[in-house]
Amino acid sequence: MEHLEIERKFLILSDTFKKEAYQKDRLVQGYLNTHPDRTVRVRIMNHEAFITVKGPTNTAGTSRFEWEINIPVEEATNLIDLCETGILEKYRYRVPVGRHIFEVDEFLGENKGLIVAEIELQHENEPFEKPNWLGKEVTGDKRYYNSALTKKPFTTW
Amino acid sequence: MEHLEIERKFLILSDTFKKEAYQKDRLVQGYLNTHPDRTVRVRIMNHEAFITVKGPTNTAGTSRFEWEINIPVEEATNLIDLCETGILEKYRYRVPVGRHIFEVDEFLGENKGLIVAEIELQHENEPFEKPNWLGKEVTGDKRYYNSALTKKPFTTW
Repeated sequence: MEHLEIERKFLILSDTFKKEAYQKDRLVQGYLNTHPDRTVRVRIMNHEAFITVKGPTNTAGTSRFEWEINIPVEEATNLIDLCETGILEKYRYRVPVGRHIFEVDEFLGENKGLIVAEIELQHENEPFEKPNWLGKEVTGDKRYYNSALTKKPFTTW
Repeated sequence: MEHLEIERKFLILSDTFKKEAYQKDRLVQGYLNTHPDRTVRVRIMNHEAFITVKGPTNTAGTSRFEWEINIPVEEATNLIDLCETGILEKYRYRVPVGRHIFEVDEFLGENKGLIVAEIELQHENEPFEKPNWLGKEVTGDKRYYNSALTKKPFTTW
């Protein structure tokens, strides 16, 4: 399955979002490639796994080509062993806000302390409701790319 | 699907193998990563497509972890557009010899003139019949890796 991913990313001001979340998943992910023109990610989320290929980001940092396929979890485990160093672990909360759902990632391990909220939009200028826990926008800031966090984890900033 | 790929690779002495082939396919393939520790290949073969991840090769150059999944051809076409420069095109002949099948790749484009025969084995020392068109063994010679041919095509050697 492929689509154009349009999303904006924010830091958060408080963890009150946790009370509003309707779902919490544990994600483990590694990269078979972290090149900005073509990342290849292996992700295990609960009892599901995926390979995701993403293309280069547009200048504003808001959109990129994304392709994804489901794969067996056991095979994903072996593929994660092949990945570049810097496996990411995080909790992902799904938080409904107005007509949208924010995905809020609370990183673990070497990225502990980092919490980032993302919202996927239909088009770049689509309006959305900003909850009171939403902080500074960091869309397009490459340090916050998950592929970058494998190399320069948040605790080393 | 994952397995340990054990194979040996040879140059050829003549193209008489073509008369012995029972199948000829046209392959187009690109790489989302050519790192020797983890190659990610997108391949279209006739009306089928695959993503294949391979791990590092053992010291002898004979075996490596391989994982593969079928994907829709149309999606593969878009993924090939994302690949590193150096898309490979080749004909693949399947040639039965004794109890084995040789896959003989006749490269096109910038690798025109290169023909390589491969045999997949169950274990490294498995005996196999050598047809009279089989030439020098090049197993483990990194120049002949398909991922290397994208960067240094045969016609530039």
